[in-house]
Amino acid sequence: MSVKVPDGWEVLKTQAFGTHVGPFYRPIEGDGSTFGFWADERHGNKRGVVHGGMLMTFADQAFGELVLDAIDRRQCATIQMNTHFIAAVQIGDFVEARGEIVRVTRSLIFMRGFLVVGERNVAAIDGIWKVLHAT
Amino acid sequence: MSVKVPDGWEVLKTQAFGTHVGPFYRPIEGDGSTFGFWADERHGNKRGVVHGGMLMTFADQAFGELVLDAIDRRQCATIQMNTHFIAAVQIGDFVEARGEIVRVTRSLIFMRGFLVVGERNVAAIDGIWKVLHAT
Repeated sequence: MSVKVPDGWEVLKTQAFGTHVGPFYRPIEGDGSTFGFWADERHGNKRGVVHGGMLMTFADQAFGELVLDAIDRRQCATIQMNTHFIAAVQIGDFVEARGEIVRVTRSLIFMRGFLVVGERNVAAIDGIWKVLHAT
Repeated sequence: MSVKVPDGWEVLKTQAFGTHVGPFYRPIEGDGSTFGFWADERHGNKRGVVHGGMLMTFADQAFGELVLDAIDRRQCATIQMNTHFIAAVQIGDFVEARGEIVRVTRSLIFMRGFLVVGERNVAAIDGIWKVLHAT
């Protein structure tokens, strides 16, 4: 398991599942829309590339942070997420998530983004989050 | 981590990531379209319910097995997966995946299914897999 924090990045605070499969990182400087993780041996599938479940977990966790930032850290839940797996990710790759908020309503947050390795898109994501207990 | 194999179920063979977050189970008898896992403390999110990433990982792994059965175990990859998170899953729940193959073409497999706890739907899934190196 890699414990190398990239220069200029910090570890994202996570709980049980995020900690079990992470760590995840976020640049210390920047607009907050970028996240990253090192793909290591734990993350493989039967073809020896990174498991789709790990990519979806990273996207859910990273873009969930982006959503939290957009709603003053109120409690929210992912209600829908769609993933296009554009290219395989290799063990050893540093995977970045780059997302944008599409719209925030009273109770819903629409977002979309990409997972990238270097400058290559490896997955396209869109999702909807819901603010819990919205008044 | 729970190691309780439900009566009448067997452990699904997994590799790196599936093993790290599993085990996953399949009934010994049946039509092969049902899978299961025990949600344990590793699988939680910041709200203390099961992380969406774990549910998507389970769906990808379980329904990937269903797809493999439909294509004589040829190599394939998930190219798209969409998830509706219908209800929260609690730590301690036994989560089942029940899927069906919608269509198999020369190189694509369309499937859909539900994740259920007891008789309650907790997630709806649809996805597309691609046969690799299809001639």
